[in-house]
Amino acid sequence: MSVTAAKGFTAAGIAAGIKENGNPDLALVVNDGPRRAAAGVFTSNRVKAAPVLWSEQVLKSGQVSAVVLNSGGANACTGPKGFQDTHATAEKVAEVLGRGAIEVAVCSTGLIGVLLPMDKLLPGVETAAAQLSEYGGEKAAIAIKTTDTVHKTSVVTRDGWTVGGMAKGAGMLAPGLATMLVVLTTDADLGSETLDKALRAATRVTFDRVDSDGCMSTNDTVLLLASGASGVTPGYDEFAEAVRAVCDDLGQQLIRDAEGASKDIRIEVVNAATEDDAVEVGRSIARNNLLKCAIHGEDPNWGRVLSAIGTTSAAFEPDQLNVAINGVWVCKNGSVGEDRDKVDMRYREVHIVADLAAGSETATIWTNDLTADYVHENSAYSS
Amino acid sequence: MSVTAAKGFTAAGIAAGIKENGNPDLALVVNDGPRRAAAGVFTSNRVKAAPVLWSEQVLKSGQVSAVVLNSGGANACTGPKGFQDTHATAEKVAEVLGRGAIEVAVCSTGLIGVLLPMDKLLPGVETAAAQLSEYGGEKAAIAIKTTDTVHKTSVVTRDGWTVGGMAKGAGMLAPGLATMLVVLTTDADLGSETLDKALRAATRVTFDRVDSDGCMSTNDTVLLLASGASGVTPGYDEFAEAVRAVCDDLGQQLIRDAEGASKDIRIEVVNAATEDDAVEVGRSIARNNLLKCAIHGEDPNWGRVLSAIGTTSAAFEPDQLNVAINGVWVCKNGSVGEDRDKVDMRYREVHIVADLAAGSETATIWTNDLTADYVHENSAYSS
Repeated sequence: MSVTAAKGFTAAGIAAGIKENGNPDLALVVNDGPRRAAAGVFTSNRVKAAPVLWSEQVLKSGQVSAVVLNSGGANACTGPKGFQDTHATAEKVAEVLGRGAIEVAVCSTGLIGVLLPMDKLLPGVETAAAQLSEYGGEKAAIAIKTTDTVHKTSVVTRDGWTVGGMAKGAGMLAPGLATMLVVLTTDADLGSETLDKALRAATRVTFDRVDSDGCMSTNDTVLLLASGASGVTPGYDEFAEAVRAVCDDLGQQLIRDAEGASKDIRIEVVNAATEDDAVEVGRSIARNNLLKCAIHGEDPNWGRVLSAIGTTSAAFEPDQLNVAINGVWVCKNGSVGEDRDKVDMRYREVHIVADLAAGSETATIWTNDLTADYVHENSAYSS
Repeated sequence: MSVTAAKGFTAAGIAAGIKENGNPDLALVVNDGPRRAAAGVFTSNRVKAAPVLWSEQVLKSGQVSAVVLNSGGANACTGPKGFQDTHATAEKVAEVLGRGAIEVAVCSTGLIGVLLPMDKLLPGVETAAAQLSEYGGEKAAIAIKTTDTVHKTSVVTRDGWTVGGMAKGAGMLAPGLATMLVVLTTDADLGSETLDKALRAATRVTFDRVDSDGCMSTNDTVLLLASGASGVTPGYDEFAEAVRAVCDDLGQQLIRDAEGASKDIRIEVVNAATEDDAVEVGRSIARNNLLKCAIHGEDPNWGRVLSAIGTTSAAFEPDQLNVAINGVWVCKNGSVGEDRDKVDMRYREVHIVADLAAGSETATIWTNDLTADYVHENSAYSS
């Protein structure tokens, strides 16, 4: 049910002709209220696409009536014309819905450095608006796919209220041109400050810790819209937990669909002095190409884990590090541990534990292996 | 001529049986004086191999009589026994040469987390010592190869004095298990402080800016030994230039032999506010897997360059960035520039210029493309 699982929302997904292959490429999500509260988090890349610059302004008011999303073009690095196109898209949505443009968030994904075919996109907005439906969530999720092999949705229902959402992205944080876009909706009756707090708390430990290839997109956007249509105001903790659960589920779906990946790797850093240390070490391991190749080769190469830990500024002593791969402590006290031949690497899920022996904090980062398929997919993307 | 091009040095390279395939795996370089001045730079990885920990201590005196190097095993993450093995190796060299063990530097390269076969290595030291020759430089260079397809040597001769050297490494900074080891020799009559200054100045702009896959080895070592046998004391600038030239040549040989690479990429960052900014931006571009795949696919994908620049903290405005690929300014003012179809990507050499328009500093980083062959080579390394 995606973004229309929560009451008060309609959505649509259509083929506007932005993608040359005729696949669906334009989605519209509309908040019919009574509330129109919203929060958003955006890429920290300093080179931001036009829709990100626009939507950041929109979110400042904490009010969003509609989100228009297109695949088939990122509208990034497109200069003043690109920003005008984003603005015109928001104006068009505002016009057909009878709302203000400043309440319309815009998301785009696809190739960088190419202007959008506005002659197809703007009529597409009218077509999508005509198809808005409380059953349109799936179609919207399908229309935002780029290199995704499946569309991604998730729903959590609690006592009288719901959080649902859709995501696109094939690997993350982010495959540059295969940006992560997420729209979450809820019918809980909450204001934008509560949404913002819950959304930031959730993304910090979910999407922000999914690191498929270490690259960061110009377009990443996560939005949370509340309609208040359930009439229920849940407690903050309960609500934040539900948002986190949906984000976690969608994040896992992104990892499982990562470009060319054959292994999903969960890196759990334990006994760190600080949570920041744990995240830094987790990311360093997740971004080590040599380790990612080794995992692809089903080689429990713990030396590459230690080598990656050694490049960080985290608190640890080299001769106290311990590493487990799929439950076998192959490295103990910075040296050879249990027999590496005991490690079973046959399955898609790989679990690495890095024990820093320096405190009691922990963090988990998810990544994928590095494969020839990843190379092939990303060598041919724009050609 | 390698490490024996300079007067006052002998070397040998033999097969000691450390490598199971019977290839050469043990090298010895001896400084016969009259001086035995030396300097060294080592990996900044905090997880350091036993030979690095040992050699760092040796270099503190500024005196090195001999260097013993083995391939076939990194002796990293091998605990107290590993350190004892390094110590025993230095003692053995000292014994056969009649020198002090504290003047013997040790370098190792190969798989992490495996103890060296000392029953083969120690007799090998005797064999190598018996074959020491002023013509042994090539054999020494061959004996330190791991995944290298060619051995690497370089010589610069000036007015009555010489700097020569050998290197191993197949891609750098560093392919984890395919560490970079470099031994440079000179017959210039200089003390260890001058050597240290010249070596650090040279490595800072050569080996430190070769970044094949962003990984950093536990074993990287660059040593510079001076015999004084020429009787000539060159001026500092002249000497530093010669050391830089040899380091530059060896660094380029490493890039050209990078694991599985099909493109050598020179990333020139210009008009940066500071040199540190230029280096940070160059590294970020060099480590962007998506760009490296695109270059492999002969795709001048400048959007990925901007995306990489955007993740740095360097001074720049997104709408003032310019990018040239092989001489074509495909990105101007952060947006679409000249026609990307004009970019000729057929050759192995690829030149990317990133213009930050924020100052007048510059830096050049060398890297390679990311290929299916890289994945294959590094998936199968230890299996």
